[in-house]
Amino acid sequence: MSTKELNIAIAGLGTVGVGVVKILQTQAELIENRTSSKVNIVAVSARSQKDRGVNLDGIKWYDNAVDIAEDENVDTVVELIGGDSGTAYDLCINSIKNGKNFVTANKALVAKHGKEIASLAEENDVYVAYEAAVAGGIPIIKALKEGLAGNKISKISGILNGTCNYMLTAMKETGRDFAQILKEAQELGYAEADPSFDVGGIDAAHKLAILTSLAFGVQVEFDKVFIEGIENIALTDVKYAEDLGYKIKLLGLCSISEDGRVNQRVCPCMISSKYPVANVDGVDNAVYVEGDAVGKIVLQGPGAGQGPTASAVVADIADIAAGRFSPVFNVNVDKLAKADFISMNEYEGRYYIRIRVEDKPGVLAAVSDVLLYEGISVDSILQKSVSIGDNPDIVVVTHKTFEKSITKAVEKIEKQDSVIEKPYVIRIEG
Amino acid sequence: MSTKELNIAIAGLGTVGVGVVKILQTQAELIENRTSSKVNIVAVSARSQKDRGVNLDGIKWYDNAVDIAEDENVDTVVELIGGDSGTAYDLCINSIKNGKNFVTANKALVAKHGKEIASLAEENDVYVAYEAAVAGGIPIIKALKEGLAGNKISKISGILNGTCNYMLTAMKETGRDFAQILKEAQELGYAEADPSFDVGGIDAAHKLAILTSLAFGVQVEFDKVFIEGIENIALTDVKYAEDLGYKIKLLGLCSISEDGRVNQRVCPCMISSKYPVANVDGVDNAVYVEGDAVGKIVLQGPGAGQGPTASAVVADIADIAAGRFSPVFNVNVDKLAKADFISMNEYEGRYYIRIRVEDKPGVLAAVSDVLLYEGISVDSILQKSVSIGDNPDIVVVTHKTFEKSITKAVEKIEKQDSVIEKPYVIRIEG
Repeated sequence: MSTKELNIAIAGLGTVGVGVVKILQTQAELIENRTSSKVNIVAVSARSQKDRGVNLDGIKWYDNAVDIAEDENVDTVVELIGGDSGTAYDLCINSIKNGKNFVTANKALVAKHGKEIASLAEENDVYVAYEAAVAGGIPIIKALKEGLAGNKISKISGILNGTCNYMLTAMKETGRDFAQILKEAQELGYAEADPSFDVGGIDAAHKLAILTSLAFGVQVEFDKVFIEGIENIALTDVKYAEDLGYKIKLLGLCSISEDGRVNQRVCPCMISSKYPVANVDGVDNAVYVEGDAVGKIVLQGPGAGQGPTASAVVADIADIAAGRFSPVFNVNVDKLAKADFISMNEYEGRYYIRIRVEDKPGVLAAVSDVLLYEGISVDSILQKSVSIGDNPDIVVVTHKTFEKSITKAVEKIEKQDSVIEKPYVIRIEG
Repeated sequence: MSTKELNIAIAGLGTVGVGVVKILQTQAELIENRTSSKVNIVAVSARSQKDRGVNLDGIKWYDNAVDIAEDENVDTVVELIGGDSGTAYDLCINSIKNGKNFVTANKALVAKHGKEIASLAEENDVYVAYEAAVAGGIPIIKALKEGLAGNKISKISGILNGTCNYMLTAMKETGRDFAQILKEAQELGYAEADPSFDVGGIDAAHKLAILTSLAFGVQVEFDKVFIEGIENIALTDVKYAEDLGYKIKLLGLCSISEDGRVNQRVCPCMISSKYPVANVDGVDNAVYVEGDAVGKIVLQGPGAGQGPTASAVVADIADIAAGRFSPVFNVNVDKLAKADFISMNEYEGRYYIRIRVEDKPGVLAAVSDVLLYEGISVDSILQKSVSIGDNPDIVVVTHKTFEKSITKAVEKIEKQDSVIEKPYVIRIEG
């Protein structure tokens, strides 16, 4: 085969952008051998021209990234700016309209504007790829689109946010509380100054919305993800979970029922040590997939960081260089169904409820009465406390029951005189 | 995009062949949507025309699979016969020479004739794919070739044989010995009537040779794999391993040194619970990969069986249907270096040695003297026995030392009067 050439522009020279430049420069020969194509960086854009430790000589500089969309010398635009509006969005839309392939690590952009982007890509016959948007260096998008192409996927469960996984692991291992661990994570660079996107579950939800679309052939709908973060997990919950034989993980879960209804949710879950991603600790991500032919597989690896994210971006660039194409969301847009979502009200599962109470006679009985009235079948109910002198907690573990029953029960229990704070509920996943 | 058509022939209608037919028939619409191509089964071949529970009406039948290579109606031949010579080999070579794409699950064929097959594929401009040949349903070939395209891979460590992993897990969990567990595995269908390919490490070595080539850009050389099976692992070793904080797993390992020298070996290894694939039990396979950009990733899933293997075969068919191409061994044949292999004599690592001895004074000292003489630094040396009345074992754990020193020491120790049987050595991997 003769060697082709691919001219790319990189918009955004932060950690990931610089990582991509480094790989393309140091592994140029390797990538050329693997793709039979020479990848040339012909343009870059960033906010300032400071030294970033990479050689950008001879590469065209753009102060305004959106102008790259007009550069006739560029075949493929690599967007590493971030954000779901403004520059990133404008660059995406204009690049595709001008017939350029588009590679991005931007989960918010893909999760919120996926359908528009995919439609435009088809109209303009270009390739849009976003492996780095989900689970960093783990090639999960490629696995879902290509490696499992013959499978009807029924479920995905993933640890999709490294910050949360680091924090929950650290709470368990060090016995320090959420606020202390968050501060430490920020100092180590594992958490942003504003951690709300991570700890609030938004980041994981962006990724989950993309996985849901790829897995089930439905339009990506970020707004339909049920989201609950880890902000309210107390150290006592981590300890009680351990007593019960569980770990707490923030999971992104999607599943499809026999009759084609889709549930997608991000929430803290209690999982047993047998659960497929139970041993994935620290900043690692992991994605568990159930397919009708393949059965159960797990892909695990670093979910963030310069090297892993850049590795995924370069994999997309290599696909384009080698001419390997797949539809943006696995099937063409006209085949992407509008999903019929199952709301959390209809959700059925097992629950952990922690209720902080005053240490008075009859409290346990009063709580039990409410659960009985709401038809909730209880697996275990215990009154316990972490330290002597603390107010005790009533810890309930239920059998399978409806979320709406739990919601009603919690409302009633909260109003009881002896109940000190709003009961905290964690779903038990498996 | 308009829908194309791909006409395939399936040679071999055993478990996997029937699995492929089932997926292609039941998921026809899904695959067409994902590949924008209609996959037609136009020919099949098998030894007998018995009922296999799939509808083969209207599909051309061949008694002799090799004749498929001459069928002008066939674009892509799917070989699921097995064996590295005879029909499978002839069908492969003739199909490629006649310009047909070739998909196979045949690890022996690819491991032994890889270079010839890849050269022919390039000459004839066809696509050869073999995802199912390594680790069943896990898309590890695709991950190495495409998902990690920007990475220089430095190491792979895999549980590549489900039979061995099942047996080692069962020995540990049930406390029953090799012979008992093998019999049980055969009854459950997890082990063949002639188990030597599996328990002898040959099957894992076929797979490892393929991974080595893909990872390091070298010619596949099955003959250069150091192979040791699990036949000599005694229940006592499993127990002593547990005492030492290790599990025993049959690993396929390949690594490349700073100066480009390659080691590839299949052997039982002791690994700690922190080792990446330590928690992979039962019939599951898992592959751990270290790349310079991505860091450490693990892919885990079922390594055999109808569904998983057929899933991988169909993924290859889908790639061809969608026109997604990559070189047979990741780079073109003229770029595949001839590897400089590190022999096991040059190998350096930590070792477990079990020496069954008569219970006499001075035995421990005599063994220690030999180790000292060979310059082997000892981490721990203990005399112990599993049951009262048994001959005791001297159990040695070494610090890092050369394999050649261990070999010499074992030869000398074996000759000592008080030593009852040949000492058994297991490498400690991590």
